[in-house]
Amino acid sequence: MLASTERTTFRQRPQRGSYDPRLIAAILDEALSCTVSFVDEGRPVSIPTTHWRMGDRVLFHGGQGSRLGKAMAAGAELCVTATLVDGLVLARSAFHHSMNYRSVVLFGQAEEITDPAEKEAAFVALIEKLIPGRYSQVRPPTQKELAATRLLALAIAEGSAKVRSGPPVDDEEDMSWPVWAGVVPVTVVKGEPIADGTGSGAS
Amino acid sequence: MLASTERTTFRQRPQRGSYDPRLIAAILDEALSCTVSFVDEGRPVSIPTTHWRMGDRVLFHGGQGSRLGKAMAAGAELCVTATLVDGLVLARSAFHHSMNYRSVVLFGQAEEITDPAEKEAAFVALIEKLIPGRYSQVRPPTQKELAATRLLALAIAEGSAKVRSGPPVDDEEDMSWPVWAGVVPVTVVKGEPIADGTGSGAS
Repeated sequence: MLASTERTTFRQRPQRGSYDPRLIAAILDEALSCTVSFVDEGRPVSIPTTHWRMGDRVLFHGGQGSRLGKAMAAGAELCVTATLVDGLVLARSAFHHSMNYRSVVLFGQAEEITDPAEKEAAFVALIEKLIPGRYSQVRPPTQKELAATRLLALAIAEGSAKVRSGPPVDDEEDMSWPVWAGVVPVTVVKGEPIADGTGSGAS
Repeated sequence: MLASTERTTFRQRPQRGSYDPRLIAAILDEALSCTVSFVDEGRPVSIPTTHWRMGDRVLFHGGQGSRLGKAMAAGAELCVTATLVDGLVLARSAFHHSMNYRSVVLFGQAEEITDPAEKEAAFVALIEKLIPGRYSQVRPPTQKELAATRLLALAIAEGSAKVRSGPPVDDEEDMSWPVWAGVVPVTVVKGEPIADGTGSGAS
């Protein structure tokens, strides 16, 4: 279990909270994007980005010139969130409508990884997260490409997960209200691949 | 168009950026969750939450005791992000793998809405975002329920959208590399509704 700290103590609905590192890892692995936040001149700045996991670290990458990468490499305090929406929870009362979700919030400072071999191993893990088995088929990165990419790692040390699941919870006196109640599942689905050359240009 | 400010000027890949309020509204409307960030004792805190839109404002709600709601009501500087992942971009080179996405980043301070009629109108809009036509069928909120819920609005005034779409962009010399390249579409799908009473308890 991750240790609970002042900023990861659950104040609202603690029954939904967890410090289980396996649950945190599973949510991070399933989420295709996350948000990384830092403080710039006293104000919050949040950037949606891609992340992936290797053991007990979350990895991020970006161009050497990116504002987020520079802040992370400079040791900025970070907050990282990843969220999976699992369902719309439709109650009998407007008040008890909700969503089923699994989310992770992590705090800490990232470390830059500069060793070329370690960097290549990290990019193997990124491509394998997208499509298992693909890395061995693609043109591997050159030294120049590895150098052009900044790689950062945040230890999964301070953070928590939060999960809501299951049906709506209506008040007893509303149970006979004449409306359908239940959950509409929400899932992320990968569709039929579209081969290169059949679409229009990228933006 | 939203005005570009110091913190919304695109530094990386400006061709992907936009200040178009219709694009920003469309992304906010499609996204089922967002992340709201603020600064607490000099450090960033980000909370995944539900949002919805009414005109040129994004709305948020929470219990009166929630940390996020208190910070927002106190006028904390906020950064709100919402992200839709649209596809895995599989290039011939490891380096040019990417994702197609649409994201929004907004900055500003929220205002609390306390007028009961305005609050009820906002919750109508929230339920209608989940399932159009549902609000008129459910048990409407009581005065007590409206009072127990804090409602906050952030003007869509300072912010931007960022979009990547289309196929991978490989280097010319990699175009004959013997690997499939293209896009795997990623979509969010609503499944078959599960009626209340057929599942296990909520958490």
